[in-house]
Amino acid sequence: MHKVKIHITLKEGVLDPQGKAVQNSLQSLEYNNVQDVRVGKYMEVYLEESENLESQIDRMCDQLLANPVIENYTYTIEEAG
Amino acid sequence: MHKVKIHITLKEGVLDPQGKAVQNSLQSLEYNNVQDVRVGKYMEVYLEESENLESQIDRMCDQLLANPVIENYTYTIEEAG
Repeated sequence: MHKVKIHITLKEGVLDPQGKAVQNSLQSLEYNNVQDVRVGKYMEVYLEESENLESQIDRMCDQLLANPVIENYTYTIEEAG
Repeated sequence: MHKVKIHITLKEGVLDPQGKAVQNSLQSLEYNNVQDVRVGKYMEVYLEESENLESQIDRMCDQLLANPVIENYTYTIEEAG
């Protein structure tokens, strides 16, 4: 079994209203040294052994998990259980 | 300036309906080797230099970014720009 850790982040230059909302909330809590916040997604996907694992994960991200127009994704694969 | 990478994940045992929805969607796309999916959040917070950076980040997570009842958080601190 493999544990795949996937990070999905907005591309640079894409507006991040959720990040701005978090930033404003932190500043209103008196954390005045907050310069910027970017919010992304993090997923852990457990996959059984298969051929071409990396190309499968690329397809999963492009088809469903990420929006390739505005998001980048990276992943790492670990052995699990 | 510091770039803080924060991972927020549901605690073990806490139901993850969003993860289940993603898992079902992947399986309906014929990815039959998907065993489980857990969805979390990933944030990049840019902070200016301050004293007690780690305790500040702990407070930010406990107060706003994570729900300590059902979520765990981890973070790493990098130098940025």
